[in-house]
Amino acid sequence: MQRPTDETDESYSLNIESGAINISAQTDFGAIHGMETLLQLLEPRSAGYFLPAVHISDAPRFPWRGLMLDPCRHFLPVGNVLRTLDAMAAVKMNVLHLHLSEDQGFRVESKRFPKLTELGSEGKYYTQDDVRQIVRYATDRGIRVVPEFDMPGHTTSWLVGYPELASKPGPYHVEHGTGVFDAALNPTLESNYDFLDAFLGEMSALFPDEYIHIGGDESNGEDWQSNPEIARFMREHKMQSAKELQAYFNSRVQKILAKYHRRMVGWDEVLQPDLPSDVVVQNWHGIEFLIQSARLGHRGILSQPFYLDHHYSAEQMYAADPIPADAHLTPAQEKLILGGEACMWGEQVDYNTVDSRIWPRTAAIAERLWSPASVRDARDMYRRLAVVSLELDSLAVQHISNPERGFRQITGGDPAALRLFASVVQPVDFHERYEEQHTSPLTPMTNVVDFTVPDPLSRLAFADQVATYLQSVKQGAVSERAADRDALEKTFRAWLSAAQVLDTQATNEPRLAAIAKRRKEWAELATSGLEAIEFIESGKPAPLSWVASCTGVMKESAQPQELVDFVILGPMDELFRAASATSDSR
Amino acid sequence: MQRPTDETDESYSLNIESGAINISAQTDFGAIHGMETLLQLLEPRSAGYFLPAVHISDAPRFPWRGLMLDPCRHFLPVGNVLRTLDAMAAVKMNVLHLHLSEDQGFRVESKRFPKLTELGSEGKYYTQDDVRQIVRYATDRGIRVVPEFDMPGHTTSWLVGYPELASKPGPYHVEHGTGVFDAALNPTLESNYDFLDAFLGEMSALFPDEYIHIGGDESNGEDWQSNPEIARFMREHKMQSAKELQAYFNSRVQKILAKYHRRMVGWDEVLQPDLPSDVVVQNWHGIEFLIQSARLGHRGILSQPFYLDHHYSAEQMYAADPIPADAHLTPAQEKLILGGEACMWGEQVDYNTVDSRIWPRTAAIAERLWSPASVRDARDMYRRLAVVSLELDSLAVQHISNPERGFRQITGGDPAALRLFASVVQPVDFHERYEEQHTSPLTPMTNVVDFTVPDPLSRLAFADQVATYLQSVKQGAVSERAADRDALEKTFRAWLSAAQVLDTQATNEPRLAAIAKRRKEWAELATSGLEAIEFIESGKPAPLSWVASCTGVMKESAQPQELVDFVILGPMDELFRAASATSDSR
Repeated sequence: MQRPTDETDESYSLNIESGAINISAQTDFGAIHGMETLLQLLEPRSAGYFLPAVHISDAPRFPWRGLMLDPCRHFLPVGNVLRTLDAMAAVKMNVLHLHLSEDQGFRVESKRFPKLTELGSEGKYYTQDDVRQIVRYATDRGIRVVPEFDMPGHTTSWLVGYPELASKPGPYHVEHGTGVFDAALNPTLESNYDFLDAFLGEMSALFPDEYIHIGGDESNGEDWQSNPEIARFMREHKMQSAKELQAYFNSRVQKILAKYHRRMVGWDEVLQPDLPSDVVVQNWHGIEFLIQSARLGHRGILSQPFYLDHHYSAEQMYAADPIPADAHLTPAQEKLILGGEACMWGEQVDYNTVDSRIWPRTAAIAERLWSPASVRDARDMYRRLAVVSLELDSLAVQHISNPERGFRQITGGDPAALRLFASVVQPVDFHERYEEQHTSPLTPMTNVVDFTVPDPLSRLAFADQVATYLQSVKQGAVSERAADRDALEKTFRAWLSAAQVLDTQATNEPRLAAIAKRRKEWAELATSGLEAIEFIESGKPAPLSWVASCTGVMKESAQPQELVDFVILGPMDELFRAASATSDSR
Repeated sequence: MQRPTDETDESYSLNIESGAINISAQTDFGAIHGMETLLQLLEPRSAGYFLPAVHISDAPRFPWRGLMLDPCRHFLPVGNVLRTLDAMAAVKMNVLHLHLSEDQGFRVESKRFPKLTELGSEGKYYTQDDVRQIVRYATDRGIRVVPEFDMPGHTTSWLVGYPELASKPGPYHVEHGTGVFDAALNPTLESNYDFLDAFLGEMSALFPDEYIHIGGDESNGEDWQSNPEIARFMREHKMQSAKELQAYFNSRVQKILAKYHRRMVGWDEVLQPDLPSDVVVQNWHGIEFLIQSARLGHRGILSQPFYLDHHYSAEQMYAADPIPADAHLTPAQEKLILGGEACMWGEQVDYNTVDSRIWPRTAAIAERLWSPASVRDARDMYRRLAVVSLELDSLAVQHISNPERGFRQITGGDPAALRLFASVVQPVDFHERYEEQHTSPLTPMTNVVDFTVPDPLSRLAFADQVATYLQSVKQGAVSERAADRDALEKTFRAWLSAAQVLDTQATNEPRLAAIAKRRKEWAELATSGLEAIEFIESGKPAPLSWVASCTGVMKESAQPQELVDFVILGPMDELFRAASATSDSR
């Protein structure tokens, strides 16, 4: 089998008719996509499994449909990476971007510079055999592996073993905090380029892909400014700013990469005057920069709207297009936008929880990057997302199993109530969690927040239930309205009774005690919901005192606290509004 | 760290007092046991995690507390083995017996004889690196790894690559069936002993444990009898039977092992006159043979009562003692009984389902082999088994997660009804499944039977519910009786409604269609249960027609079919009896 590149023809056609299935493709990788589609078409019926008669001609819109993993902040064992590749193949993604070095750890073995992992990884890294296994597994699935060695900032872990690379004297230690640190490679030392030449030479022998990512983000220049030798170098070279010095560094690194026939990828910060046009810019500062850089002739990929730790809904990510309709790029400029990458930064996930942050939402991104821009029905996307989620579950992706295990562990084996609670909340976003918890690489990832998932599919189910009821109140038949009311009441009663169970379980479990306010609010929302139904059914608007009390409950429930946010407040609000304005306002 | 042996002192003492935890042990391995106990003592409370103040002095009753895995019939990837070692360590087991060669596959790489796996494994085997990883992982947990190379029978996979070893001309192919096959090494060829010398020499360099298991079971002698050269050899050596020829073979192999400082283990069949006394006999023909062989001075380990594929209850296995009270062995003879081994034969499990057949039941065996014979309260064992089951779940053992995933897959993501069904059944035993299904290495392990578990903990919960109700009918207070009745009625109603859900789901799922009879019987049992309660509450015995109909339902439900057995029939029967004999018979 050949190796996938950014020019691989991934198209395929699939023809299913009575007695014959045909897949045609220009490459093995196209054929693999065809087989994934075939699998998805399998329909179980009572009497067996069936395939529909179809003819499909399919090809991706973008050649770069990536996912970035960050095994630096929390290490991800090889098994995690392999099952992620299985999942990526199922949704036809084709680039695995591995962010392999950081202040918090250096995660790939170098035979040339063994102290990178001996001193910079706390024992957690991929051996070269591991890397070969990952690359082979990816190649077999039509997925490229792009390694990232973030430099000149985010390099503390390099400096633990090799302090001579640094801009300030050591000793350095592996960071256990998170954020932006001052440590940086010294761009003025020729010996550092010798080091990088040897290191990147070794890495290009290990990673066959044409691209190597050099990071380049968040280099704050602090350690450069405080080093008189570096200041002198800048004066001598007439550099006005750390930015210019970084541009110099990048161009040196780019020449080294070129020597090894590798093209450079970097984050937004590498986009500086004189950047060679074959460098790919990974956009995280906002899509306007991506559009702008395409106008300037640079190739780029979109990332920020696909930052998975920000907990955007699948819907929001699905709506983010690398080439927005209003970008008004020429066809040639559009071609410079290679696609996008979902980014799973590792500060707030570990090997157990990471799957539930990536999947199933990333399947929506994968579709955005594969399908025509015109395919954008979010409702239908969610319907299919539920199916894909189960397909990924069958591949042993842990996005369902891990939360389920967490519910069992926290509740001593009686998980139903916590499972229901998890269906009405999601983890707070990255910044809020950091504010509340000061999350670090040492924070246990075994609390309730870790077993809730961003944008749970239950969110839509509840919204539908409320909408359906309110709709049938407006214009439904009597029996239909009664059924819809019963269903909604049943939901609220289930919440109430689960909240009671959790109260009892909390006496034996600190992790349930830690969500005391949310538990109380949940029960209050359920009670108010039942009352709202009563008012609506009575046909008279609820009294102002009740409305005020509901407003209070809603306000409290919307406050950020205990690391989880309710995902049911929108529909609850509609229900309360309907109760306070019954019939007359309609 | 040293290497564990069968003479390692595994004792430890654990002292927890305010402000200090002390673990003392003679060896690292004793200390590891102490830490496992410490972990188990952790108690969650609302305010945090607590440890009780205790002093524990602990040591195992038997030095050989083993688990056998069979990666031959269905291959078990390294990850399975490693998590099994985690689980074994948690329950203080210390021998992993790997059954590495079979008619259906040769599962460990030999550099000396590469065709063993190249042609005899269908690509599924442990590389030598894998073996080293497994041995290291086991050693770190105080677990010995005893490899088994089954010979002279069960050797088809050897003969695919090396037909010159065989008793009949080839060609041979890897078996896809199960059972006892005629293929066997030719014990009359000197060249075969050269082969075994080279092979076992290589394997003893790979597996550091003092013991190597040579199988020796079920060698039927068919291919020997039909080979005139072998017949001549037997005449020349005055051998009357295949048994004697096998004894000759064993003694030759035993000499080879001795050369490599390895002691031999074999199944019952190796126990023949002149067997050297350091050979350990693994008993699977019945404990009477184990007792007898101890009387003859042979060391042995007990296995058959611990055959996990026979689906004995945890209770039954817990009751099986390697030294039964009525064995009347001398203390010296008792010392010859080294312990026992749970055996997980691989015909009817694959890498996904195997955990749920081993755990949690094997924890009961582990306790039998560790604790004094006098510790035998099955009720208390089950209470603790539920806790251990969750501890194993937290170690990512898949005994709960895999069935849960199965429920989701089969029901399209709405698993509650199937989960409840699985709580009232268990997989039929090995022989019955083979009869019904002709299970082979190619049978998919993704049907309902594969997601049910032997001796589910729910079995006892239901039995308790019925017993409690019948007890309170006899002598309970009115309110208590009403509560117990309500609880039991609720259970039956939940069964009824789940059976209905499954009926609906079955229209889209062949695997649910395949349990149509069991689903129907389940609903009938629930209906009859509700009726029984009505009769009991009425104080009048049920009419004979009803009793007859119940008897019919029970008879039907007790029939073997659709690969699962009900585990609720005992308590159901008690309920029906109570209904048909209400009050007067009491």
